[in-house]
Amino acid sequence: MLLGSIEAGGTKFVCAVGNEDYQVKEQIQYPTTTPEETIQRSIDFFKKYPDLRAISVASFGPIEIRKNTEKYGYITDTPKVGWSQTNFLGMLQKAFDLPIYWTTDVNGSAYGEYTLALASGNQIDALTYYTIGTGVGAGTILNGQFIGTLGHPEVGHVRLKRHPDDLDFKGICPYHGDCLEGLVAGPTFEARTGKKGQDIPLSDHVWDIMAYYVAQAALQTTLHIRPQKIVFGGGVVSETFLKKVRHEFATLMNDYQDVGDLEDYITMPIAENNGSATIGNFALAYREVKSADN
Amino acid sequence: MLLGSIEAGGTKFVCAVGNEDYQVKEQIQYPTTTPEETIQRSIDFFKKYPDLRAISVASFGPIEIRKNTEKYGYITDTPKVGWSQTNFLGMLQKAFDLPIYWTTDVNGSAYGEYTLALASGNQIDALTYYTIGTGVGAGTILNGQFIGTLGHPEVGHVRLKRHPDDLDFKGICPYHGDCLEGLVAGPTFEARTGKKGQDIPLSDHVWDIMAYYVAQAALQTTLHIRPQKIVFGGGVVSETFLKKVRHEFATLMNDYQDVGDLEDYITMPIAENNGSATIGNFALAYREVKSADN
Repeated sequence: MLLGSIEAGGTKFVCAVGNEDYQVKEQIQYPTTTPEETIQRSIDFFKKYPDLRAISVASFGPIEIRKNTEKYGYITDTPKVGWSQTNFLGMLQKAFDLPIYWTTDVNGSAYGEYTLALASGNQIDALTYYTIGTGVGAGTILNGQFIGTLGHPEVGHVRLKRHPDDLDFKGICPYHGDCLEGLVAGPTFEARTGKKGQDIPLSDHVWDIMAYYVAQAALQTTLHIRPQKIVFGGGVVSETFLKKVRHEFATLMNDYQDVGDLEDYITMPIAENNGSATIGNFALAYREVKSADN
Repeated sequence: MLLGSIEAGGTKFVCAVGNEDYQVKEQIQYPTTTPEETIQRSIDFFKKYPDLRAISVASFGPIEIRKNTEKYGYITDTPKVGWSQTNFLGMLQKAFDLPIYWTTDVNGSAYGEYTLALASGNQIDALTYYTIGTGVGAGTILNGQFIGTLGHPEVGHVRLKRHPDDLDFKGICPYHGDCLEGLVAGPTFEARTGKKGQDIPLSDHVWDIMAYYVAQAALQTTLHIRPQKIVFGGGVVSETFLKKVRHEFATLMNDYQDVGDLEDYITMPIAENNGSATIGNFALAYREVKSADN
């Protein structure tokens, strides 16, 4: 069975065709330009596969996910120039008479990691996926459904206890200054130090400050949602960095609640090369086919 | 149909018998002493009703809610003297051959408010109930199920951005110092001012500080879970206080996400006289009967 995946990022699009075993048959990626041009390229790509059974889209946002609203399937008020009020799903539906699943980029990745965890024999009912990159976001899958009723989660904008060595940094979020995203998104490295994150050795103290904040985000997720696993992806994340995050998390938790082995609880993605969302899309598209068959 | 409710608090127990229309037939309350004595009093109360069809317990915690564990139905490691490792559910099961539902106090209240919202014609799929009293906790009902897989939520222990006028206050949580509970639980009034909360007029600046923290908790819930309603109960909460909370919430959100009318979003309980948990228990007990019938 052929299934389509669109991972729609603010910088680039990754489109793939694969099967229900999550094997990629063909994949393309290209920069995000105008909505018309960028979405048309994904349409052209999928048109080569007349046997496609369903498509799933994991999109940057904010997006409208409430099916009972007029704007369902839209990218709504995004800072990405030219993309506000884009009827993304509508453009796809015009081009394809297929079931199309619509969710956020991080929900797609969460579903991919959840699918891979289940496939590897892990009994998981709830998993949260964070991305720490140009922006910060998270998605949670709980008993097969995404958390988010009034809209999708936007955890990048929670507030945090400031690190004592970071009190003078005002944060870079245009809406909130020192929210989570304003304190740990990739561009904060340059704002704090004048250097890019990749040029700052992990032994530098700025990484401890970052870990303190990311650990607070993990703590919030733990105490609000109690998932069985929190996966961190995105350009800022590495295994060495997560070691620091686990250390800060344990200090913050202070043995109050048991989350099991921290190495299994706070982890890198199972999918390699940022492939979580593509796998999630294949799994979600497959689910759409099955539910259409029933 | 007769249904039983136990609202098991650290200070007092409230036991009630009622029906599937949430009408109380008889209710008793008594102080929480030893586990044996306190639970036996609830057993004696329900024994007067041989037609009882099910019981639901909304208990203080932490409690074990994972059915596949040995300690399911226990109060686990609680600071409440004498109550650690109490097999609460086991004692009830020994006394009654009935379906017994087991959950946290705040989950019981969340379910009560969810039930009342639905009964009043409100289309609600997700609702969070906070208690701000001796302690701080929250429960969330999402599509008929409680959020919490690895255990129940423990949102009282998240960290917050400190209010600039409150930086010297260390907080009162024995585990974490200045976590949410350590900053806003009832006893913080005395720790900060030497006076009890009820003796401090709502015009005092300490209430603005409290509102700033409680608004951050509401913001976390909003951005992690996106429920349609957040209900605040507990001794610290009043409508006048919630006005301040809504104001701080709006400032923190800075129009980033729309949650609708804040008066409908951040609210006092519908149930009067702290009755949310009793109504939730009746509804949960009724659900147990129906699911046993199927």
